[in-house]
Amino acid sequence: MIYSFKNDYNSICHPLVLQKLIECQYEQSVGYGLDMHTSKAKELIINKIQHKSEVYFLTGGTQANLVVISSVLRPFEAVICVESGHINVHETGAIEGQGHKVITVKGENGKIRPIDIQGVLEEHVDCHMVKPKLVYISNATELGGVYSTDELKNLYEFCSKNDLYLYLDGARLASALATDYLNYRDLGLYTDIFYIGGTKNGSYSGEAVVINNLALAKDFDYCLKHFGAMLAKGFVGSIPFEVLMSDNLYYEIGKKENECALYLTSKLKELGVSFYYESITNQIFPVITKQEMEALKEDYLFEIWKYISDDKVVIRLVTSFTTTLEICQNFIDYYKRKVKKEQ
Amino acid sequence: MIYSFKNDYNSICHPLVLQKLIECQYEQSVGYGLDMHTSKAKELIINKIQHKSEVYFLTGGTQANLVVISSVLRPFEAVICVESGHINVHETGAIEGQGHKVITVKGENGKIRPIDIQGVLEEHVDCHMVKPKLVYISNATELGGVYSTDELKNLYEFCSKNDLYLYLDGARLASALATDYLNYRDLGLYTDIFYIGGTKNGSYSGEAVVINNLALAKDFDYCLKHFGAMLAKGFVGSIPFEVLMSDNLYYEIGKKENECALYLTSKLKELGVSFYYESITNQIFPVITKQEMEALKEDYLFEIWKYISDDKVVIRLVTSFTTTLEICQNFIDYYKRKVKKEQ
Amino acid sequence: MIYSFKNDYNSICHPLVLQKLIECQYEQSVGYGLDMHTSKAKELIINKIQHKSEVYFLTGGTQANLVVISSVLRPFEAVICVESGHINVHETGAIEGQGHKVITVKGENGKIRPIDIQGVLEEHVDCHMVKPKLVYISNATELGGVYSTDELKNLYEFCSKNDLYLYLDGARLASALATDYLNYRDLGLYTDIFYIGGTKNGSYSGEAVVINNLALAKDFDYCLKHFGAMLAKGFVGSIPFEVLMSDNLYYEIGKKENECALYLTSKLKELGVSFYYESITNQIFPVITKQEMEALKEDYLFEIWKYISDDKVVIRLVTSFTTTLEICQNFIDYYKRKVKKEQ
Amino acid sequence: MIYSFKNDYNSICHPLVLQKLIECQYEQSVGYGLDMHTSKAKELIINKIQHKSEVYFLTGGTQANLVVISSVLRPFEAVICVESGHINVHETGAIEGQGHKVITVKGENGKIRPIDIQGVLEEHVDCHMVKPKLVYISNATELGGVYSTDELKNLYEFCSKNDLYLYLDGARLASALATDYLNYRDLGLYTDIFYIGGTKNGSYSGEAVVINNLALAKDFDYCLKHFGAMLAKGFVGSIPFEVLMSDNLYYEIGKKENECALYLTSKLKELGVSFYYESITNQIFPVITKQEMEALKEDYLFEIWKYISDDKVVIRLVTSFTTTLEICQNFIDYYKRKVKKEQ
Repeated sequence: MIYSFKNDYNSICHPLVLQKLIECQYEQSVGYGLDMHTSKAKELIINKIQHKSEVYFLTGGTQANLVVISSVLRPFEAVICVESGHINVHETGAIEGQGHKVITVKGENGKIRPIDIQGVLEEHVDCHMVKPKLVYISNATELGGVYSTDELKNLYEFCSKNDLYLYLDGARLASALATDYLNYRDLGLYTDIFYIGGTKNGSYSGEAVVINNLALAKDFDYCLKHFGAMLAKGFVGSIPFEVLMSDNLYYEIGKKENECALYLTSKLKELGVSFYYESITNQIFPVITKQEMEALKEDYLFEIWKYISDDKVVIRLVTSFTTTLEICQNFIDYYKRKVKKEQ
Repeated sequence: MIYSFKNDYNSICHPLVLQKLIECQYEQSVGYGLDMHTSKAKELIINKIQHKSEVYFLTGGTQANLVVISSVLRPFEAVICVESGHINVHETGAIEGQGHKVITVKGENGKIRPIDIQGVLEEHVDCHMVKPKLVYISNATELGGVYSTDELKNLYEFCSKNDLYLYLDGARLASALATDYLNYRDLGLYTDIFYIGGTKNGSYSGEAVVINNLALAKDFDYCLKHFGAMLAKGFVGSIPFEVLMSDNLYYEIGKKENECALYLTSKLKELGVSFYYESITNQIFPVITKQEMEALKEDYLFEIWKYISDDKVVIRLVTSFTTTLEICQNFIDYYKRKVKKEQ
Repeated sequence: MIYSFKNDYNSICHPLVLQKLIECQYEQSVGYGLDMHTSKAKELIINKIQHKSEVYFLTGGTQANLVVISSVLRPFEAVICVESGHINVHETGAIEGQGHKVITVKGENGKIRPIDIQGVLEEHVDCHMVKPKLVYISNATELGGVYSTDELKNLYEFCSKNDLYLYLDGARLASALATDYLNYRDLGLYTDIFYIGGTKNGSYSGEAVVINNLALAKDFDYCLKHFGAMLAKGFVGSIPFEVLMSDNLYYEIGKKENECALYLTSKLKELGVSFYYESITNQIFPVITKQEMEALKEDYLFEIWKYISDDKVVIRLVTSFTTTLEICQNFIDYYKRKVKKEQ
Repeated sequence: MIYSFKNDYNSICHPLVLQKLIECQYEQSVGYGLDMHTSKAKELIINKIQHKSEVYFLTGGTQANLVVISSVLRPFEAVICVESGHINVHETGAIEGQGHKVITVKGENGKIRPIDIQGVLEEHVDCHMVKPKLVYISNATELGGVYSTDELKNLYEFCSKNDLYLYLDGARLASALATDYLNYRDLGLYTDIFYIGGTKNGSYSGEAVVINNLALAKDFDYCLKHFGAMLAKGFVGSIPFEVLMSDNLYYEIGKKENECALYLTSKLKELGVSFYYESITNQIFPVITKQEMEALKEDYLFEIWKYISDDKVVIRLVTSFTTTLEICQNFIDYYKRKVKKEQ
């Protein structure tokens, strides 16, 4: 049987989330997020981050990004992010679609630094250019990195000083948190808005947008509806977070994913494989030969990230809540046997 | 225990939908709607309507409306609908939000007629006014009515002759179909685009957009992503339709809802209650006194639709897939006993 | 020779405006409105209205309306206006094009009253509907009426109390001011934003947007450029206002237009002609027979406003800065001789 | 007296344009571009380019760019241009403001090549990224270069083969044409749409958008109005082109500008000054010391383009229809005397 390391959104949901649906199936709840499950999920999130914030449940990452950014910017205001930022590359122009330019900087290893933002501010000085107003970061990043507590704090302070909002896309936040480079409280303290990714961390879909800067929460519910992002069955959007935020489950999912990814990384390194990015999260980017790739394809699914020479290719392996160490051991065995043809 | 007739989106999903999730929970599927469940659900829908169409799965009605309308209109083109149209009243300006004027007509009993559209066309004759290009109808309507086969055919032919698209919002399509005033094939033959509502008919959320006019399907997947309406876990959006479109379940849900609504209507009429609109679907609008309303509130949830005099109020009762004839009998009994104080 | 009463924008500009262009033709000025003519024109406007406001020069009325409204509203916020409002009828969906619903009320004789706005506020109570935030009025109105000082004050106070902005479209402000029903100071005191129409009052084109509510002026220059409304040759936009705002010229143009319109009205009434609206400004709406209309067409241009019966038609006659009493006398003579066939 | 080389939009208009206004001042014309001047200007343009095209008169370059691009693209479609492209840098996000991503490429010397576009096409392969659909070029470029007949032809053929539109921004088209590297007919043959810049070439403002690909002209007048770009006094927008397109005036203006710029360039080179870009048009970019810059400032206005070291600065000198060889000689004399301190 083929196992897929293609992404972290390939199976329905964590068994505990499904269990909760079964438990609640005969309930009647009020609509549009005014129900008890939504209240409970909000409370659990606020307790985790220890910050008086507003919480909203949306159905996907691109949707979360476009609603948040459109809600807080005026027409001529722009977003700053790194070139590899998800909003810049893989959202089919959703941010520009609602009217806002995405200004990109090179950054370093997929992360933006205050000095990068400084450069943008120095270039954008009058009304003939857009006005930078929001900095977008992903944590974990698209390239497997993590912004630590200190990095996040520095960014946030730089932004605040320069009248910029800091918004954190947490599509893979579980994996970032599970590195212990930062914790839940940092998210409340050092961002204006962030979202807790459900889709890639055990939910059947859905993201929890958390607005720490309460001035930005004004009429956010109107924005949700206006952009088609408010579910009539709000409870369907919040129930997964009620489960994920209980008993540290969200963190545990990230922990297991990271362990599996780390296992794969260290074993592949022992086998002489190099890596394109230095990842500490659930996405890893080994560099292999095309021949090896073909052999791997027989039993595994994964993304081809980039061809870097006639012979070499970067692939992406992603661990998810369904990945186990045993699955990873089998992969390494397979790699040794079939790909490397060891005996 | 209080029972809610407030709406048809107050419980998670039909038991068979949940059963399917349980069955599939250990599968791995490809993302973004390229999986087997999505293929199967599309096939089932195409078989029902007997039309070579393209099918897409979205997460909600407002989202479906805004993506469809934005996808097919140029910037200066406008939508025509009745004043009570959902896009006009209850979508927080989502259509205007993507740039398009909603032109309203009075219509008749919540339905638009060719003569209404004719009037709009006669008024909009040059480039100083928007260009009407799409007619939006809901079936069932927001007021409990249904467009029959003939009405739909007439509208479609009028639209085609006048270079207008006809788009049908099927938020409550199950209830409309179950009246037998029209059938699945009519939807393929007499609309350019329509959607099959899941949220209000047994799914945990989600709507299936069906594009019959294939020229309008070009790059619709780009639009989905652009407007934040494409689920990474596409299969989560299509599985409910795989279930609802099997063995006539969707129609059966509508049938039962309508029976319950009809039962309530006839019994209330026997008790002397009048109705604000003549509904044949799962939404009914009895006119009662404020005192009766207060008495009802003790055991039932429902919407207050409109105050029509100092003493009289229109309420809305909505039946759903959880409603049974027994629940309705209890309601009538309660009404007799507690509200009418009969013996 | 045929004379046109078709509109007030049919000749290049007032002779004094052209004279000023000739005087300044060899100057070099800085771009984008940072020149001396623009400063002077701003100063003259501020002196007229006696209010510390910000002033910007745009090229047309639809542009002014779309930039102003888009600048001050958030995505889900809406405009309220009467059904005959220019933004509702004759701007090809420009306001919706930038994302905002236009909510219409019947009003009275083309004017909106606090009670009309009250009705809208009572209907728009939650996040499922747009949020009314700005009231749009035209002064003079599209139907020839004028909001007096008292009416404007009442509207403004009602708006302020209800957290609504009041925006006044002054496409035909000269004619309104020249009725003496209101004066320049009222515009500063009783609107948040208004514009002084140049196109229809002697300029070769252009409108002066005046922002009294200074919080709304923040970054308005960015909005100008963002919406393509900032002229490189800013001085070309402001020079006409430098002329029109000197020596009361703007008012005098309106005065003469009104006198001519009043002359036509009274003489036509003497001849038994009735009027569709009771206008006191430079647009009048006589009701004549189709046969009379055909006879008039031989020597005059005018708009056909509306057919009101098989035989009767409303036409629109507009006086402009080129209209003289002599031209009007000729028109009346012609009407007597050729149309009425008097001897 | 100080002379400004700051830009080519610092004085009202060419004397012949003003003369025409004086001649026509007592005419009455129909509105919205349906007048005789507009017809005449269109005819003259079509005769120049020898192509059956549609022509529209707008008021500025950013406006022309946003209306054209918004008119032809669907929501998810994007523009490709060089990093220095005006729409990317100096239009305050006007293109994104109407929903479209601007994809940038490095290009070569401010010009885009087929190979640059090829790279973009290879990267944008599925619905998770925007769909490139229009290539934007400026001719003359922002850096003083010109696309020749051959370059334009190659670009256009590459675009056509790849289902891309080619749009040419002609803000400084007079200067480009006057290099004789291309001619009017090339514009009709090798672009889908282009605009003839008036603002920077002798008009008081205004640009003529020419649509060669007639399928793209459908309902363009609706777009004009929808985006606030249609002048009531259409004739005010077209009269300058009636003049500029007569007797080769537009070309002659460019010729004189280029001669002046070339004179300055060659004389400055003789004096040892180097240039940052190799310009053949009316914008030149000498590199001087800060001390020299300060001395120049006493008698001349110009833009500071870029500081390139502690001591060196690139300035921009722009010649316009008011510049004469005598003015340029004086500048060179001044430079020798005061700046270089020669005797």
